[in-house]
Amino acid sequence: MNQEKLSRVISAMGEAGIDLFLLSDPMSVYYLTGKKLTCLERMMVLLLDCEGNHRLVIGRLFPQDEEELGVKVVYFDDTDDCVEILAGEMRKGCRIGIDKSWPSGFLLRLMELRAGESYVNASSLIDKIRQIKSKDEQDKMRKASAVNDECIGELIKRLPKDMTELEAGDELLSIYLDHGAEGHSFDPIIAYGEHAADPHHEPDHSKGDYGDAVVIDVGCLVDGYCADMTRTVFLGEATDQAKEIYRIVREANRRGIEAVKPGVRFADVDRAARSYIEEMGYGSYFTHRTGHCIGMEVHEFGDVSSVNEEILKPGMIFSVEPGIYVPGTAGVRIEDLVLVTEDGAEVLNHFTKDLIEIPWEEEK
Amino acid sequence: MNQEKLSRVISAMGEAGIDLFLLSDPMSVYYLTGKKLTCLERMMVLLLDCEGNHRLVIGRLFPQDEEELGVKVVYFDDTDDCVEILAGEMRKGCRIGIDKSWPSGFLLRLMELRAGESYVNASSLIDKIRQIKSKDEQDKMRKASAVNDECIGELIKRLPKDMTELEAGDELLSIYLDHGAEGHSFDPIIAYGEHAADPHHEPDHSKGDYGDAVVIDVGCLVDGYCADMTRTVFLGEATDQAKEIYRIVREANRRGIEAVKPGVRFADVDRAARSYIEEMGYGSYFTHRTGHCIGMEVHEFGDVSSVNEEILKPGMIFSVEPGIYVPGTAGVRIEDLVLVTEDGAEVLNHFTKDLIEIPWEEEK
Repeated sequence: MNQEKLSRVISAMGEAGIDLFLLSDPMSVYYLTGKKLTCLERMMVLLLDCEGNHRLVIGRLFPQDEEELGVKVVYFDDTDDCVEILAGEMRKGCRIGIDKSWPSGFLLRLMELRAGESYVNASSLIDKIRQIKSKDEQDKMRKASAVNDECIGELIKRLPKDMTELEAGDELLSIYLDHGAEGHSFDPIIAYGEHAADPHHEPDHSKGDYGDAVVIDVGCLVDGYCADMTRTVFLGEATDQAKEIYRIVREANRRGIEAVKPGVRFADVDRAARSYIEEMGYGSYFTHRTGHCIGMEVHEFGDVSSVNEEILKPGMIFSVEPGIYVPGTAGVRIEDLVLVTEDGAEVLNHFTKDLIEIPWEEEK
Repeated sequence: MNQEKLSRVISAMGEAGIDLFLLSDPMSVYYLTGKKLTCLERMMVLLLDCEGNHRLVIGRLFPQDEEELGVKVVYFDDTDDCVEILAGEMRKGCRIGIDKSWPSGFLLRLMELRAGESYVNASSLIDKIRQIKSKDEQDKMRKASAVNDECIGELIKRLPKDMTELEAGDELLSIYLDHGAEGHSFDPIIAYGEHAADPHHEPDHSKGDYGDAVVIDVGCLVDGYCADMTRTVFLGEATDQAKEIYRIVREANRRGIEAVKPGVRFADVDRAARSYIEEMGYGSYFTHRTGHCIGMEVHEFGDVSSVNEEILKPGMIFSVEPGIYVPGTAGVRIEDLVLVTEDGAEVLNHFTKDLIEIPWEEEK
């Protein structure tokens, strides 16, 4: 266990009045132990005790090295009631912190066994610690974004190969692997034309047509950390309206980034980007939050949204990704990752945001 | 919504005294609606009401066609408290059925809002219905296993290409796609030598050596249904002890299958396979359950294990997969899918279980 990270979690438990914290999110457990423990549908809980008697409760099929892990391991068999075994390790009369993603079936059984005095969603305790990236994590995030910058450029060069959306995703994977990345950090969104105007389009076997906007929302995984960037390019010449939308989104992205500094709220960053799009008359076409925190996972705790009052702190990294989606006309999204510094922001992406029109024949 | 399936769930709710059932497992929702709704980390609940006022509560980013779906849709925005919106749709004073995989964060918020009178893990209600495959589902399962039979044969023919475990998995994927499958139904386990003696080995860049057992635990997805089969083959000549282990596992597989008929318990099938391995002195090397139910998902509700007292019924499909894993000697597993019929069992796999020794040079 990383003692420095652990002591931050224990201290946060103390402040929140939580005696025991049942940590089950594999990424949070990895964050503390340096070990990836994925046990399929089987229960896996790192039981953190503010008095220091920590336990890992895990299926016997996944044997662990206690010394290496630095925590006592308690095993259960597939034929055991695993929650009963967990309850047996818990001090009585406690206020129990629960991980938000823990399957309810386990929690309901724990309640049935009256293992705790009360139960509370405690994920934000560790999520807020994970939100602040260490120097080492910041370096890894810089590197992942640098690789992403290079690779998106290479992909855009290859778009004239006339690939389907799915083929373009496969092409990008091979570019990532050639550049030393471990793979995609999420399923890439490469959306042509009509699909570009759907912010959650799932890539399919469609190809691009002359004049299409192409939304390219992609990221690689490098040293266990995630990149995430969006650029929108055009096949042939963009229409005047598409160019206008592009200019507005680019300016909204710039204003969102400009608002980033310690002490302001996430909601202020959202407002800075969103208000410009609203002023320009496209407010109803910007249908999602402005961004999300990111790190070992592509979506981590912390939204850049109108309702998030949390204050920005140095070390936070999140996306600023405004978009305008006008069905039948064009969809444009421009996204960068931004690191909050001591006195402002560092943008992790450097690939150009100038409008790119790829030479394209009118009839393919 | 499929009215016949829905009425079976409503009837099961009545028997269990459950007024409202918050169904959130995307596969169960797909089973009832025919629609795959995956909403990433956002909440998605099909609220089944025994009085008939069903609702789908889903993020506005995932617009649905109410007519096509046959259920009233209630949307929330990313800035809403989605659980509060769900609670607003629920009748008061009810006993609430919860899906076992529903993230605890939502359940704890629902409890905080006092939306229900009591809460109970109700997954088994729909899981037991999904356990009994319809004629149409049985046909799809037969087809998936027939494709798996063909493809495993083709893979075994190609093993002399001297592939790593991971390369063999990729090779199998291309074989599956050539045979019309949608892909793997799970990450294939192809384990050489020492790795074969670890029942949960994750394939890596290792290659096979002369004399190695090769555990091949693989399945394809065809028409949305999963195949799953294991064969163990040898590179060159198997040692006498490996041959003996192979013979025992094959007989245990035969005895397990022979025990399958309506009216016996899952535990009886486990006992039939396990007791033979115990008699032969290898009981401590058979470290997992004998099998699991399967259908749209590769692991569905219902274990073939020593503690499952549930009675077999016609239409159930599960694996019978005994194994013996002796570190340093050999690992062997043999697995078939079995359908419970009106008076016995139909084995869905037909690939040979005779011992296969692949011609292999002593030094590669």
